[in-house]
Amino acid sequence: MGKPQKNAISPTRVEDYPEWYQQVIKASDMAERAPVRGCMVIKPWGYALWENIVAQMDRMFKATGVKNAYFPLFIPINFLEQEAEHVEGFAKECAVVTHHRLEKGPEGGLVPGGPLTDPLVVRPTSETIIGDSFSKWVSSYRDLPLLINQWANVVRWEMRTRIFLRTSEFLWQEGHTAHATDTEAIERTHMMLKVYTRMVQDYLAIPVIEGRKTAAERFPGAVDTLCIEAMMQDRKALQAGTSHFLGQNFAKASGIRFQTEKEAEDFAWTTSWGTSTRMIGGLIMTHGDDDGVIMPPRVAPAHVVLLPIYRKPEEREQVMAYVSELADTLRKIRYADRDLVVEIDDRDIGGARGWDWIKKGIPLRVEIGPRDMAKDSVFVGRRDHGHREKTAMPREAFISGLTDILDEIQDHLFQRACRFRDDNTRKVDDREEFYAWFTPKSVEKPEIHGGFALSPWCGDAACEATIKEDLNVTIRCIPLDREEEKGKCICCGKPSNGRVVFAKAY
Amino acid sequence: MGKPQKNAISPTRVEDYPEWYQQVIKASDMAERAPVRGCMVIKPWGYALWENIVAQMDRMFKATGVKNAYFPLFIPINFLEQEAEHVEGFAKECAVVTHHRLEKGPEGGLVPGGPLTDPLVVRPTSETIIGDSFSKWVSSYRDLPLLINQWANVVRWEMRTRIFLRTSEFLWQEGHTAHATDTEAIERTHMMLKVYTRMVQDYLAIPVIEGRKTAAERFPGAVDTLCIEAMMQDRKALQAGTSHFLGQNFAKASGIRFQTEKEAEDFAWTTSWGTSTRMIGGLIMTHGDDDGVIMPPRVAPAHVVLLPIYRKPEEREQVMAYVSELADTLRKIRYADRDLVVEIDDRDIGGARGWDWIKKGIPLRVEIGPRDMAKDSVFVGRRDHGHREKTAMPREAFISGLTDILDEIQDHLFQRACRFRDDNTRKVDDREEFYAWFTPKSVEKPEIHGGFALSPWCGDAACEATIKEDLNVTIRCIPLDREEEKGKCICCGKPSNGRVVFAKAY
Repeated sequence: MGKPQKNAISPTRVEDYPEWYQQVIKASDMAERAPVRGCMVIKPWGYALWENIVAQMDRMFKATGVKNAYFPLFIPINFLEQEAEHVEGFAKECAVVTHHRLEKGPEGGLVPGGPLTDPLVVRPTSETIIGDSFSKWVSSYRDLPLLINQWANVVRWEMRTRIFLRTSEFLWQEGHTAHATDTEAIERTHMMLKVYTRMVQDYLAIPVIEGRKTAAERFPGAVDTLCIEAMMQDRKALQAGTSHFLGQNFAKASGIRFQTEKEAEDFAWTTSWGTSTRMIGGLIMTHGDDDGVIMPPRVAPAHVVLLPIYRKPEEREQVMAYVSELADTLRKIRYADRDLVVEIDDRDIGGARGWDWIKKGIPLRVEIGPRDMAKDSVFVGRRDHGHREKTAMPREAFISGLTDILDEIQDHLFQRACRFRDDNTRKVDDREEFYAWFTPKSVEKPEIHGGFALSPWCGDAACEATIKEDLNVTIRCIPLDREEEKGKCICCGKPSNGRVVFAKAY
Repeated sequence: MGKPQKNAISPTRVEDYPEWYQQVIKASDMAERAPVRGCMVIKPWGYALWENIVAQMDRMFKATGVKNAYFPLFIPINFLEQEAEHVEGFAKECAVVTHHRLEKGPEGGLVPGGPLTDPLVVRPTSETIIGDSFSKWVSSYRDLPLLINQWANVVRWEMRTRIFLRTSEFLWQEGHTAHATDTEAIERTHMMLKVYTRMVQDYLAIPVIEGRKTAAERFPGAVDTLCIEAMMQDRKALQAGTSHFLGQNFAKASGIRFQTEKEAEDFAWTTSWGTSTRMIGGLIMTHGDDDGVIMPPRVAPAHVVLLPIYRKPEEREQVMAYVSELADTLRKIRYADRDLVVEIDDRDIGGARGWDWIKKGIPLRVEIGPRDMAKDSVFVGRRDHGHREKTAMPREAFISGLTDILDEIQDHLFQRACRFRDDNTRKVDDREEFYAWFTPKSVEKPEIHGGFALSPWCGDAACEATIKEDLNVTIRCIPLDREEEKGKCICCGKPSNGRVVFAKAY
């Protein structure tokens, strides 16, 4: 009982990937839809993951000299007017606050009262308001560089939402820096991309390609947009972080001027960079299997669950004492900058108990009953592979080898994801092959196509547009480490200097 | 030059306390008014303090079994209608979102577009939406207790604002728990109050009185409201945290039902408890002096600033190398659950440099020049007392004694604040004396009055109202540890069982 014959998640990934994603989240108890359109409630298991990501990334930011600050939730509408004038792709779907009071309406319910003379926008990003602060904070080269990050909630009114991937409200960080020279700002743009790569690869165990966006895919107003792109298990790309070099454009729009060392006046050179709770969606779609989520140990909300096993009530006390003592021992072990998090699950719900933790993706499940105690051994199940099999281990060996096992799981997840990506990435030089690569395998499963294509591109936006129009495939990035390679554009056949990454994308 | 003749902050506390408060914040660079009415920008020095408070308190919460989660920013208006019906003191000053788009208006500017059928309220608290979640999450006694906390921004449309003390948007945490029995819920209410006391006394170095609110001051809907009350340097009380036992009232309003162990159906017993960025205002007003903020070491954004001193450019390299090496050594020292934070300030701005750090309230300033290096000594200035004098110390003694010095400062701040509070607290039994105690000393300085009065009260709300009406003085709390003591009510003269804390309050 409790142990399903087949898989814990229905449908499976192959049967219906988008629906699998929703079901995995539900089964893991990470988050759920809120009673507010397009918003989510992040439940403790999902939020603890986010906290671990935040803590680790925050440490990395600070190590580069970045400091955190907090800017207001609301933005005066005229701040955005300025931006709307300058920026083509200006996001207009915002929550607008027009009243500051609730009043009893004619029918007894509550209605908005106290209209505001100037409506306020709930920040879709804090860019303009941070720019306003920077313009006040910077007056001399001595004030530079200014290296600021904010952790906050932002709102973009989304019509089609999916938990973690696209929600009207989400949590993110946005970094903004101002520099005295372009060289320094460009260096910072790359430095923060490297931080993202390190975070996503070394902690979330998601392999990424570092690259540069084409002009068409660039952040509006940016001179250069760098990004990291990952492949999900439906072979689509997910952008896991971006870092923008904004030149002096943003400084000019916000009035960030400074006096140079030579007493001339100049505009600052700025950057911005961001990641969000979307990374959690990426983690689920990279590692999850048909039994649920799989948490990489370095960011897992908990590392080990201890499952006491006893038949007779009189055994309970003894087993629980043994389990508690083991938990205390394990909790003193440090792993990836934190103490190990150990759960004890004593619920009397049969086999459903172990499956709950499999669905949640905890790296290790440890069963302990009187027989194990007698042998001073533990019965260990790993979540990363063969997780339905369990292995007996001497207690001491388990304790002393625990961080190695966790490292092994972390590494295994990363290697498996690399293999999946590489298996579904192909150098394609022929136009016909390219179109076939991106053609869905069947009408029922439009999501199953080839994956990433590394193909030559001439650099012309028209070719990019044609491919997008035909296949809904975009250039995800021009890899930073790509080699010069003479070829013929996959679209028009004109000369190309190298390959770019084409893919369908989230 | 740079060293003011008198004080760094003008006006002083005695000259104009409210204005002193604004100036201290400005001089410390902790925060500033945002370009949005009633909102603040929390700058890095202020935000780092908040981060330290959050980290420490979060650790304390988790040690009691609490888990964090995140609920949406927006609340459907009908959620509040329900509350508005039940609750007398329902807060109506809310930001209301009525549109979800920005459009070009007839005059070219942006105007709200896409009206919402159902307006949304920006959370003034997440109470109702958390209640809605709890009603779905709880169905059996096995699901209890449910112990949830949220760190978030909330908005209450305030007319008169003061940075940290009262702003339209502020940062806070709200804890919500549900239990199977009233005993357990009451125990939790007290447990969380104790956490607040520990945080505020042991970390912020602010002495507090733990007490219970009178019915008139109780949180609307609560059965019992516990609080901690501190005295600021203008002798007014500041409530630094509250913890509410809500009985089954909240569970009934939100439909939090569960099946008991005996298979009966019952409503859960709930609690809620909160603290906010207001604590920072309390910290400033408790410890600050006429030279600026004073940071208690255990939560200080940084512990030590190293100030390299050199006259000739050729000395620079040598001094900086020595300073960097010292900084590296100090950064490896742990203090109050964190690595020491050490700043190096190499700005060439004369005496203003040291004063900048005095105004910011950093616990220790350390000057290092060629002469100190020759003697392998450092020149140390403490912020807590006699901070204009500096003492030479052997480098090794400074390093090995550093955490003791920080503990000494922490303790000294706490003891000084206790002394101030005790000096300005009086047992008052006579009505005339009571009125005199709360009468301002002069028209120019209405804020200077006696302080706290510990006086007998009969328990009648009418007496409480009279005193509030006459003096703008309220019962801050009925101390939890008060002794039974026969007396006569300070207002009506009828019998009283013990003293309560009367004060003017923020």
